[in-house]
Amino acid sequence: MAEERGTARVTCTAPVNIAVIKYWGKRDTDLILPINSSLSVTLHQDQRRPTQLRTTTTAAACHDFTEDRLWLNGEEVDAAQPRLQACLREVRRLARKRRGDDAAAPLSLSYKVHVASENNFPTAAGLASSAAGYACLVSALARLYGVEGELSEVARRGSGSACRSMLGGFVQWHRGERPDGRDSVAQQLAPETHWPELSILVLVVSGEKKAVGSTAGMQTSVDTSPLLKYRAEVVVPERMTRMARCIRDRDFEAFGQLTMQDSNQFHATCLDTFPPIFYLNDISQRIIALVHRFNAHHGRTKVAYTFDAGPNAVVFMLEDTVDEFVEVVRRSFPPDSNGDQFLRGRPVGTAVLPEELVSAVVVDPVPGAIRYVLHTKPGPGPQLLDDPSQHLLGPDGLPCRSA
Amino acid sequence: MAEERGTARVTCTAPVNIAVIKYWGKRDTDLILPINSSLSVTLHQDQRRPTQLRTTTTAAACHDFTEDRLWLNGEEVDAAQPRLQACLREVRRLARKRRGDDAAAPLSLSYKVHVASENNFPTAAGLASSAAGYACLVSALARLYGVEGELSEVARRGSGSACRSMLGGFVQWHRGERPDGRDSVAQQLAPETHWPELSILVLVVSGEKKAVGSTAGMQTSVDTSPLLKYRAEVVVPERMTRMARCIRDRDFEAFGQLTMQDSNQFHATCLDTFPPIFYLNDISQRIIALVHRFNAHHGRTKVAYTFDAGPNAVVFMLEDTVDEFVEVVRRSFPPDSNGDQFLRGRPVGTAVLPEELVSAVVVDPVPGAIRYVLHTKPGPGPQLLDDPSQHLLGPDGLPCRSA
Repeated sequence: MAEERGTARVTCTAPVNIAVIKYWGKRDTDLILPINSSLSVTLHQDQRRPTQLRTTTTAAACHDFTEDRLWLNGEEVDAAQPRLQACLREVRRLARKRRGDDAAAPLSLSYKVHVASENNFPTAAGLASSAAGYACLVSALARLYGVEGELSEVARRGSGSACRSMLGGFVQWHRGERPDGRDSVAQQLAPETHWPELSILVLVVSGEKKAVGSTAGMQTSVDTSPLLKYRAEVVVPERMTRMARCIRDRDFEAFGQLTMQDSNQFHATCLDTFPPIFYLNDISQRIIALVHRFNAHHGRTKVAYTFDAGPNAVVFMLEDTVDEFVEVVRRSFPPDSNGDQFLRGRPVGTAVLPEELVSAVVVDPVPGAIRYVLHTKPGPGPQLLDDPSQHLLGPDGLPCRSA
Repeated sequence: MAEERGTARVTCTAPVNIAVIKYWGKRDTDLILPINSSLSVTLHQDQRRPTQLRTTTTAAACHDFTEDRLWLNGEEVDAAQPRLQACLREVRRLARKRRGDDAAAPLSLSYKVHVASENNFPTAAGLASSAAGYACLVSALARLYGVEGELSEVARRGSGSACRSMLGGFVQWHRGERPDGRDSVAQQLAPETHWPELSILVLVVSGEKKAVGSTAGMQTSVDTSPLLKYRAEVVVPERMTRMARCIRDRDFEAFGQLTMQDSNQFHATCLDTFPPIFYLNDISQRIIALVHRFNAHHGRTKVAYTFDAGPNAVVFMLEDTVDEFVEVVRRSFPPDSNGDQFLRGRPVGTAVLPEELVSAVVVDPVPGAIRYVLHTKPGPGPQLLDDPSQHLLGPDGLPCRSA
């Protein structure tokens, strides 16, 4: 808890997570309780690299604040929105419970809060910005009020998949059985150090825009898709067990296959929704076909795609495949410009592709279709930033100029 | 039966059918027995209009023929292919049964046959060319040998959905229960005259090519898609009953909604297949979105799409909607050239679109994306052509020059 004279400020970062067993559909829209369990990999926030995906949030509280206020990427937005208020209420409730009747607690729970949050990636592009956003908000508020322990349940109230961003590595979100949602929480299956060879590429597709938001989309699916119901009740429980085993055993082939199958099944239920929802576009389909050709050429599953509610691909592979696959991507989707911004994140080595590989895998290139490729790894959960210069809100509780 | 001195020749035409409850997946690949029942509308062959979809087939038999021979669209192909031979064997078996020991029967069952078949539409473009093709083959062979009665079971041995092209109007193909397939037959629910207002547009998308053939595709789906199994066992039986009721009651709104939902669910199971199969491309997705905007604007289901194993759309509507919807399609996908080949088939009137309709429905036009629009209706089953000038094989049993 960071208490200062006047304004208390805390700044955290939180990670994006990418589900390998997908969450789609709520059984309780108010408490945000899912119709099935899900499982994800937390992406690295790597503070030293400006291009790694993360959200940064400063929460501030002060006697003098007259209302809750919220800035997203420098723009003030309505702080009365129910999900933000639900998170705030829940953190305060936990703080109250923890303090008991200790009137000497440093920060009054009645103070209004100011919150500023920034993503270093495009929002609403199917890159789980709300997951990182609410995980970051809840982490910062919890630190501000000195609350510790299980917080995924609180983050879930902001955005379902945010609960998975409260932990690093490999995380499962239990569906839970209770109507009050107390058992619908995230749990770490293994830390990010468990599988050091696992590498991740995010392929950001050009000109993408999200047609149907996931909140509205998943509810239409619950209401209209017979296949989603079957998936949630019958398919996912078995897949959760199987995926946990793949991760435990670091069995990349089985992990990759199940990851691709579950991504495809999620998008199948979107198509079974009425009216149907399409998140995969022609470029997504080309990436899928490319991955299958690459694997077929090698005679085994060396790379595996997954797509959330948008056309961008997240591709898993082991470290020894990164250089070659990146070169295959570059040949299949030649960068528009000179390409110096094409590769971002962790370093990638050069690879010379064998002729047979090129002729079997690189067919019909589409220049400019992929905007950039981000190389990343599994990473830890939310982080506290100690350096006061990194606060997004000044001592006056208003946004700093830098954005 | 057409018997001539020397060479006996029979020429038939057969229609394309479009499923509104889709067939996808066999439980017996040899006998071609489906995992679920299906229901289709037979499209009109309209002999007077050159652009209507149909297959024409001449079957000839002669003492002098030394081997079975087959010409498809003027090219000779291997007549030993198992599906052709299965149809031939089954027709001969029925002829033998019918004749008993009548040695005076006019045409020897031991004669070899020559068959020539022509489609007036692109094959393998998801327009059910094999359905019309085998229905036509079986019709012509049956006439040649004087076989009458239930022939859908024979056509099914050529191509599953061919059994539905053996009847006109609204046709269901019963899944059947018997392992020998004797009860897996087509049955007419209602003739083409039952619903005279029902109109059909085929939107032929530019540059389409079929990536995965339906025979291979559906077997991969049976092997890998958990959702397909559930669809076949649980979803389709209920939908068959409901669709038959929609047709009986001529309830276009219910018919249209269920048609769209079932098309979407079929494509969802393709996506749930591993590796996934995509038949819908960006243009298909745009047509789907256009139909939903059109219906939303009118506040009810006035048009309904369905897609088979390809990107081309078949769109149902009542007669009074054709002119307006065609104009909406023309504005949304402006023809490349002067557009005089854009509209084919039955005549379409002009329509002046209200401004609100245009601004609500015609967004982001894509010039040239639709090659042409074919206007058609439900129609009858296979037809015998009496005019000898229409035979595709000459008295010598070889293809005539005209193609």
